Amino acid sequence: MEIAENLKAVRSRRPLVHNITNFVVMNSTANALLAIGASPVMAHAPEELEEMINLADSVVINIGTLDERWIDSMFRAVKIAGEYGKPVVLDPVGAGATRFRTSTSLRLLETGNITILRGNYSEMKSLIGEKSRTRGVDSSVYGEDAARIAFTAANLFNLVAVVTGRIDYGSDGKRVYGVENGTPMLSRVTGTGCMLTAITGAFAAVTEPLEAAISSLAVFGIAAEKAEEESRYPGSFHVSLYDWLYRIDDEVIRDKARVREIEP
Amino acid sequence: MEIAENLKAVRSRRPLVHNITNFVVMNSTANALLAIGASPVMAHAPEELEEMINLADSVVINIGTLDERWIDSMFRAVKIAGEYGKPVVLDPVGAGATRFRTSTSLRLLETGNITILRGNYSEMKSLIGEKSRTRGVDSSVYGEDAARIAFTAANLFNLVAVVTGRIDYGSDGKRVYGVENGTPMLSRVTGTGCMLTAITGAFAAVTEPLEAAISSLAVFGIAAEKAEEESRYPGSFHVSLYDWLYRIDDEVIRDKARVREIEP
Amino acid sequence: MEIAENLKAVRSRRPLVHNITNFVVMNSTANALLAIGASPVMAHAPEELEEMINLADSVVINIGTLDERWIDSMFRAVKIAGEYGKPVVLDPVGAGATRFRTSTSLRLLETGNITILRGNYSEMKSLIGEKSRTRGVDSSVYGEDAARIAFTAANLFNLVAVVTGRIDYGSDGKRVYGVENGTPMLSRVTGTGCMLTAITGAFAAVTEPLEAAISSLAVFGIAAEKAEEESRYPGSFHVSLYDWLYRIDDEVIRDKARVREIEP
Repeated sequence: MEIAENLKAVRSRRPLVHNITNFVVMNSTANALLAIGASPVMAHAPEELEEMINLADSVVINIGTLDERWIDSMFRAVKIAGEYGKPVVLDPVGAGATRFRTSTSLRLLETGNITILRGNYSEMKSLIGEKSRTRGVDSSVYGEDAARIAFTAANLFNLVAVVTGRIDYGSDGKRVYGVENGTPMLSRVTGTGCMLTAITGAFAAVTEPLEAAISSLAVFGIAAEKAEEESRYPGSFHVSLYDWLYRIDDEVIRDKARVREIEP
Repeated sequence: MEIAENLKAVRSRRPLVHNITNFVVMNSTANALLAIGASPVMAHAPEELEEMINLADSVVINIGTLDERWIDSMFRAVKIAGEYGKPVVLDPVGAGATRFRTSTSLRLLETGNITILRGNYSEMKSLIGEKSRTRGVDSSVYGEDAARIAFTAANLFNLVAVVTGRIDYGSDGKRVYGVENGTPMLSRVTGTGCMLTAITGAFAAVTEPLEAAISSLAVFGIAAEKAEEESRYPGSFHVSLYDWLYRIDDEVIRDKARVREIEP
Repeated sequence: MEIAENLKAVRSRRPLVHNITNFVVMNSTANALLAIGASPVMAHAPEELEEMINLADSVVINIGTLDERWIDSMFRAVKIAGEYGKPVVLDPVGAGATRFRTSTSLRLLETGNITILRGNYSEMKSLIGEKSRTRGVDSSVYGEDAARIAFTAANLFNLVAVVTGRIDYGSDGKRVYGVENGTPMLSRVTGTGCMLTAITGAFAAVTEPLEAAISSLAVFGIAAEKAEEESRYPGSFHVSLYDWLYRIDDEVIRDKARVREIEP
């Protein structure tokens, strides 16, 4: 994995990442994308999706505050992205918590146009059809079979699947990588999973999907670790997280990245 | 009032608080809930309200950027919460400023399913049918009869009513408590009233309504005082406020809480 | 230009600024308005626009996440503001990027009720009918003819036009002022252009349009420079920006303002 090289590519090419995302995290995901060196745009009106996605380098779909009208925009966006050959990253926020979220996620996956799927343990488990305890959009549930779930989801949906939790796993259906960066403090700030998904969209614009998934996991996790060294409480940690998405460089990555390939 | 005990219950039980709230504060109320130790979820689609509220421990309704479609979701949510026996906290943002906000608030109150009503002086005064000067969603208007308004609203709507301002008052229609915590700096950060309402939802999930109302007033006000000791300007104060919602403990509460029962 | 006097008027009169703005920046523009000393309200429901605008001292329209329903509210608001004689500031976010944004902006301008138009170089260039490179809602494109574009737009639309970039220009169609305050770090935080537009709405409530436009450019740019002296990274810079919108005073303005009238 060429994590530092991929980050350099994001910063030099400054990809335009088109987001149809949830109301809670629009500001924080836009700021995360700007901090890492990408350029965010949020647009959901059917009238402008084709032009905006044509301009964009990748598309991020996040169902966190979904409703009928926004879902319609998501399907249009995914279809257009497929036609224009733009990578699409999907964040199935709350899949498993309600049938509406599970079925919307599955229908988006059925389009065949999703490039990377990034969810937490219970979301991803529910999407591959296994029962999971869940508490709303909470990420506190985690199991030791997260690597297997990533591998299974990658094969089932024919894409790169990422399961985040204590250890994050990403798989393209053949290889599986584990990433042991990050900190539990991330769960005390809303939308950090959504920020990761948005950043994955930035990396997906400059490298192939598995590289993009693993690089963004490492970069985001390391930035969080550095932020926590400075700020032990959630408000100031959140601020430092943007600072470190901006500051993270080759040396920090070399020093901190804990990425390894594992047996699927 | 067992403020410290109630806070411990929030932190150990980590209640799932379902919010139908306004676009301005979705991020900040979610972060306030996470900082205090609760778990937020935002969802407004009619298709998933029943499942989500069934999972949730309490419901928070905030009309800050209301429109016809969101109001429909609010009424469905309040009805479902009543059926499932979940406590509901209502923030009537801007009641008194427009007839649309006043009448929507009154109609939500008429359902009989609101457990706690939390508004500022002019909002609460308008809801009990008294004329009040108001400036949009501004909280600068305040009067010395705030305790009486809390008491009257509690009896009129048969719930726990909270009127916030220089001194905050909460009443269950029999008793009235005054809370003298907080700082004027709270009025320089958007959505701090909404954060308080959201946190009241967390407390309402773990204790009875008057305890929940008074405990959240004290905890939020004290966290604000501690934040202001560190940060005298609104941007950094806002950051410290999340830090202190996370840091506040028994000792700080014992040292700072200014809660007293008053004659109704 | 009486920048310091105009700021004093904002702080003493505390104008109520009614915003119909985008989901990404609702929180940050509300906080910017509170920090500078104004009072924000966000409301978009047709049912309450007339009452709210009647209460308000100015109106800010921002098309950043526009859709059909919100556009309808924007047109109603602009019409009502015209009837009540309230100044209207328009931020044509992403004009030039999609025909939907360009044509919506032009139709809003055609009402004749826009008082101040504030966009970045490529947005403003596209609105006066000249081809411009654009990347989504990005402000990285800039040209040395920005002053001319401000002057042309002011005459074409019969209002005060502001073009922001490395140097900001504002014109009422006769005079042109250049403002050399600000820092490139502003482009690493989402919605800083939108914050400026919101603040312009606050100034427009207390002084005439060209004074309002130039004063807000200087005050916002200076606050950003002071913030950058404290915070070199985007997360903490963003926090300090609110602090300095609150802290900026006569002395800082006198020391830092770089405003000059230029030949049109």
